[in-house]
This record gives sequence, structure tokens and C-alpha cells, in this order.
Amino acid sequence: MNGRILSVQSHVAYGYVGGKAAVFPLQCMGYDVDVVHTVHYSNHAGYARSGGTKTSASELKTIFESMEKNELLNPSRLLTGYIPNAEALLAVKDLATKLKEQNSNLVYLLDPVMGDSGRLYVAPDVVPVYRDMLPLSTIITPNWFEVETLTDIPLVSLDSLHQALTKLHVAHKVPHVVISSIPLKPWLAAVLPTDLRPAEGTDYLLCISSSHTEDQTSQLPFRSTVHAKTVPLLPGYFSGVGDLFSALLLGHYDPSSPSTGLPKAAAQALSKTHAILTRTLEYSRTLPQEEQLSTDDEKDLDTPLRKTRRMRGRELRLVQSLDILTEKTERDMTKLDEFWNAELN
Amino acid sequence: MNGRILSVQSHVAYGYVGGKAAVFPLQCMGYDVDVVHTVHYSNHAGYARSGGTKTSASELKTIFESMEKNELLNPSRLLTGYIPNAEALLAVKDLATKLKEQNSNLVYLLDPVMGDSGRLYVAPDVVPVYRDMLPLSTIITPNWFEVETLTDIPLVSLDSLHQALTKLHVAHKVPHVVISSIPLKPWLAAVLPTDLRPAEGTDYLLCISSSHTEDQTSQLPFRSTVHAKTVPLLPGYFSGVGDLFSALLLGHYDPSSPSTGLPKAAAQALSKTHAILTRTLEYSRTLPQEEQLSTDDEKDLDTPLRKTRRMRGRELRLVQSLDILTEKTERDMTKLDEFWNAELN
Repeated sequence: MNGRILSVQSHVAYGYVGGKAAVFPLQCMGYDVDVVHTVHYSNHAGYARSGGTKTSASELKTIFESMEKNELLNPSRLLTGYIPNAEALLAVKDLATKLKEQNSNLVYLLDPVMGDSGRLYVAPDVVPVYRDMLPLSTIITPNWFEVETLTDIPLVSLDSLHQALTKLHVAHKVPHVVISSIPLKPWLAAVLPTDLRPAEGTDYLLCISSSHTEDQTSQLPFRSTVHAKTVPLLPGYFSGVGDLFSALLLGHYDPSSPSTGLPKAAAQALSKTHAILTRTLEYSRTLPQEEQLSTDDEKDLDTPLRKTRRMRGRELRLVQSLDILTEKTERDMTKLDEFWNAELN
Repeated sequence: MNGRILSVQSHVAYGYVGGKAAVFPLQCMGYDVDVVHTVHYSNHAGYARSGGTKTSASELKTIFESMEKNELLNPSRLLTGYIPNAEALLAVKDLATKLKEQNSNLVYLLDPVMGDSGRLYVAPDVVPVYRDMLPLSTIITPNWFEVETLTDIPLVSLDSLHQALTKLHVAHKVPHVVISSIPLKPWLAAVLPTDLRPAEGTDYLLCISSSHTEDQTSQLPFRSTVHAKTVPLLPGYFSGVGDLFSALLLGHYDPSSPSTGLPKAAAQALSKTHAILTRTLEYSRTLPQEEQLSTDDEKDLDTPLRKTRRMRGRELRLVQSLDILTEKTERDMTKLDEFWNAELN
């Protein structure tokens, strides 16, 4: 795998989120990565404080236009992540539109970073712009909350998940949807083949990929090709995991075989992200007790640096994972033949 | 080698200069790199056009202060490069002063990026600020022109080089000076042992390291420990070479043995930089004829994109050099026992 990827997302001086979580892994895979920052901050928002500047829409436009004038705007892949407001997002939409017009084979991984666990952390006017951008994408990587936000469908049953995926694939014309880090609810566990179902009393995260390729577009009833994989849930909170996962997914994706390429790439991204998280957790357990607690909100109110120290101990062990990032084992997900079978509901 | 390096230098979206040339190599060596940008540009100035924004001094201060409040300002090494004006440089000077006060073992590689071949490409008021900052440094990596600018001594003879190095080590209290990419003039070639002198008719670049350690400070006459190494000169112009060299030098430097650590690290940096340049040159020779010309100024005036295309073909093949960056052979330079021998003049 190689080629040129344009990455447009956040930059922090310290730690690994946004571009800091995405660029090094892609470079280790041999990609030349063009890097444009949507913010220039000291650290991610999980710390008690952060400082820095948002890149304005006009600054973004100037950079894209200068690259274009110099014939330097020629990536084979585009990766977009955190973009803090609608004005900047519109500049990125114009960029994606232009790149797609120039090169219909552009592989665009759009990570619609908007929020998590029921809470938006971008300006609300970003949401309709992301909806408009969905037809430009090759792959989107929303989390559970972002699927609900983009589709306006609360995900409370297999039927509602069917509706949401149908809306993304048909109304919004997204070829590939990958949802990682799904808490394994009973109605989701029921659709998994036995060997993917975790043992009683163990906590797992589910990753689902859903592909709707060109030769499927006229088929009725609507059915995408759905694959899944599970990994054990690791305790505590880590930042930048979604950014790392999306980068690895894009880096491993082989567009020459889209139907098999997506689940293979998702399996790679999930395995490697999990391996790096495991290494990060092992490292954090070597730190002083106070820095490895997963949460302790009451005491935090008195001493905000407690939170900071825990965050610091959980920054991804990315540069210490060169072996994981360059490792080349083949991987795949399991096809869910029963996923669209309504009887399961 | 590992630890935490704070890198403060330029950022370009496309290509490899400043931070884009420095950060990936250091990450490949296992360093966590905190990355603060002094500019956010589309590409380096060697292209016909470039666009973007300079980071203001107050933005830099905000980022450093936010990191400090979060206890995230704790690098064991500091690397500073291109800083476009005196106001921003003063913010970096304050940072370096604070870090040095907090940690007297801080290893600070100061690359006084000011110009080349007789021409300044920063504001002139940057020069006296760099002079003030020299006592904070552990290693400086000026080019030939920057040595002349910092010392106000034109380098026209071995005697003038003696004076310049004495001024840097004694008046400006710099422990280690490394000058790479020196065109091999006859008066310099004369000081080299026979095995370092290139054959007639071949062009070589010389790298000199000069160390003045604590146990030497009271000795008279002044003599630093000088080492040298040569590499064949490659044809044409490459960007980001000095930034890559400085990063590799800092990454390879072992502060626990400063007198032998510096020439060993300089040898590593020189060999690896040369290997990456060789790979870049080989790649550029696979490009269409028009994109690999080294210069063609007359035709450029009519078609500015000619220059851009040549530049693009000479961007460092950095991500394609993971093998070189992670390779672990020991290397060293040759000690120049005769360097301070005035009879050679």
C-alpha cells in the first residue's frame, strides 16, 4: 500500500488525537501524508484546560488554493476528521467536491466527528453540512451517537439499525459504513453467529461494517453486505482511538476489491487499534496509582490536575507501537448472513 | 533512545521541510514528539507560490502556557528550527529559558535557521535574538552562512574558522557546534587526514563537529575537540535536508557521554541523511525529464510551474525510508588532531 493521503483534522502539541493519532500510522504504512490542521491546540479537550487557535475557513481555503496552484493537490485518498464549525466544514466540503471531480477514484474516508454518548462537541450547524457531504464519501466512520445524529433515528432495535443503514446507503449514497466501539446490546448480540458472541460476564465491543456496492443498488429489498468483529472491552477512557481507527481503516483499504476490501481493512484497523490500546493500558498500570485511576470525579473538583495526570497516563503509546503499525498479518471480519433477516427482531 | 522531545518549527501541508522533515524520523526512533508549529503553510518557499499563516507570538505563548498549566511541558529534549520573526523567537527564548531552569539536563538543539548562500530569509531582527539564545543551547547546527552571521566573521581561512568556533564556544557558551554541508575548500581539505580527503575531481561535502566540554573551559590556549566526516556531493537542490539532519543529530545524541556522543550522533545523522537523499535522487530520476532538471531559470520565467514540478520531484523520500530511519549500525566521525595546529595556515 502506498500513495498520497490528504489529512484534514485537528492538531495538538502534546499527545495523540486527530492528526497526531492518524499521520504517524499512515506514514509507517508508507503513505506520503499531506497534513492540514483545523485547530492548533496545546492538548485535547479531555484535559482540564487547553489553549490554542482554530484555523479559520479563509486560512483553510488559502492553503488548499495555494496547493492547487502549485499542482500539489493530488491525493489518491482524503481523510477528514474534527472540524470545529460549519464555515470551516464548508471549505472542506468544497475541497472534497473538487478532488472528487478531478478524480472519480478518490477514496474519501469521512469521519463525521460530532460528539459521543448523547452529547455534541461541535457547533450544531455542522450536522446538516455533514449530511450534505455524505454522497462525496467512500467510507464513513460514525460512532453510535453520530449514526443517530446523521439519520435522526434512535438506535434501539435491530429494525432501527436496518433503517439507519438503509438511510445512509440509499438516501445519503454512502458506499461503506463502519461503526466501531459499539456496546454489545442483547438485540445486537442475537444477530451474531455463535463464535462471535462473547462468553457470559465478559464485556466486548462490536465493530460492524456495511457495504453497498454498485451492483447492489438496484436490488430489492435493500440489503447491504454486513460484517462484524468483536474485541474485549478495555477498562477506562482513551482519547484519539477513533482517529487512529479511521486512519488505519483508510490505510488498509484496498479499493480494487471494495466488497472484500472493506471488512479486511476494518479487521486490520480493529486488531491494531486494540493492540495499541492494550499496550497503552499496560503502560498506564506502571504509573503511580493516582495517575492510573479511570475516574474519580468528586476529588477532581478540588484538584483539577488529578484529571490531567490520568489523561496523560492514557495517551496512546503510538510511537512505541511501530511493530504493530508495520505488521502485515492478513485479517478479516465475519460475514453476518442473518443481519437483514427480519425474523430476528 | 527514547523520551520526549518538544519540536518548535515550521509546518507545511505538502512535502518535507521543518517539522514534516523532523518529526517522523524522531517518532520512528521511539521518541514522543510534542509538535508546535511556527507557521502553517501549503508548501515550502522553494515552490513558485505558497500560502498560509504565521503563528503569532501570542498564539505560541498561549500554547506553551496551556501545556505548562496541564503539567505537559516536560520534554527531556528541545528542538527549535525556523521561526519567522523576532517576536515569535522571543516567545521561544522564554520557553527555552523556562525549560532550562526547570531541568538543567535539558538537551537543546538550536538550529539558528536564518538563511543560506549569503542571503537572510528571516527578518534581520532575528539575528541578535539568536545570539542571546546561544548560551541556552546544548548543540547548534548553523550552516556556513549562519556561522558567519552569528559571529560576524567571514570564513575565508582556517584562522577565521578558529576565531568563529572560539567565539561560539567561549563568548556564546555553546557546548557543541555541528556544521554540515560545508563545500570542501582547499584550506579546509588541507586540515583533513589523508583518508578523509576525496580523490581529485570528485565533489564532497564536509561535516565538522566541535565540542567544548566543561573540563576544557579553563584550558589555554582554547581548543575544542573537532571531528569530521565527508559524504559525496549529490547534484541538484533538496529542501528540508538541514531540518532532517538536525532532528537525526538530536535523536542520536547520547548526553551521558557528551565528548564521544556528539561525533557519533553527527556521523549517524550525516550517513542517514545522505542515504535518504540518495534514495530521493534515485526516485527523481524515474520522473519525466522536465521534472528532474536541477535548474533552468530562463525557461522558468515563462512557465512558473516548471519550477514547481522540479521541486515536487525532489521532496525527501522520507516515509519510504523507514528502513534507514530505524537502522542501528554504530557510526563515528574522524578526530581532527591537527585542526587547531596553526602551522597549517
